[in-house]
Amino acid sequence: MKKLIALYKAPADPAAFMDYYAGVHAPLVGKIPGLVKAEITRINRTLAGDQGNFLLAEMYFADEDSFRAAMKSPENAATGADLANFAGGLVTVMTGDVIEI
Amino acid sequence: MKKLIALYKAPADPAAFMDYYAGVHAPLVGKIPGLVKAEITRINRTLAGDQGNFLLAEMYFADEDSFRAAMKSPENAATGADLANFAGGLVTVMTGDVIEI
Repeated sequence: MKKLIALYKAPADPAAFMDYYAGVHAPLVGKIPGLVKAEITRINRTLAGDQGNFLLAEMYFADEDSFRAAMKSPENAATGADLANFAGGLVTVMTGDVIEI
Repeated sequence: MKKLIALYKAPADPAAFMDYYAGVHAPLVGKIPGLVKAEITRINRTLAGDQGNFLLAEMYFADEDSFRAAMKSPENAATGADLANFAGGLVTVMTGDVIEI
């Protein structure tokens, strides 16, 4: 399973951030072709290390081919462009593979 | 669903880190009472934001009560203490809730 991961630092106005995320950004995420599921985690506490993370969004794709097609899609471009509307300077975007240990 | 999240920055020796993680740390994680599942993601690329993340480990618990019991367990204490053996200065540990958007 391939993942696109977005880790957001705490915004100045958490309620407004979440309203925008749920009302505008998440629907854009949902249109990305090949998306298997999206899991959103609200960070509550940081027990060790870097403070200030707020939200973790993980978008799952079945395999490398569907992930690459998704990344090249206009729907993904629109989703990425929307980040500037609410998360400029707050988001780290990463790609990864779920691995068996 | 409650989660314990560990985000590791890139170690000096990734192969040795992964050998230790798989051979010593993951078995300790597996003993934490109430653990529903653990999902390990190898970070491949950072497309925006903070560079240098290497591994994302997510431990899932069914609810708040089982999560609190897990955090208080000697197995969790042993797992936390083991972090110093391979991930000192590399790990950010967070707690969170999977939310519906």
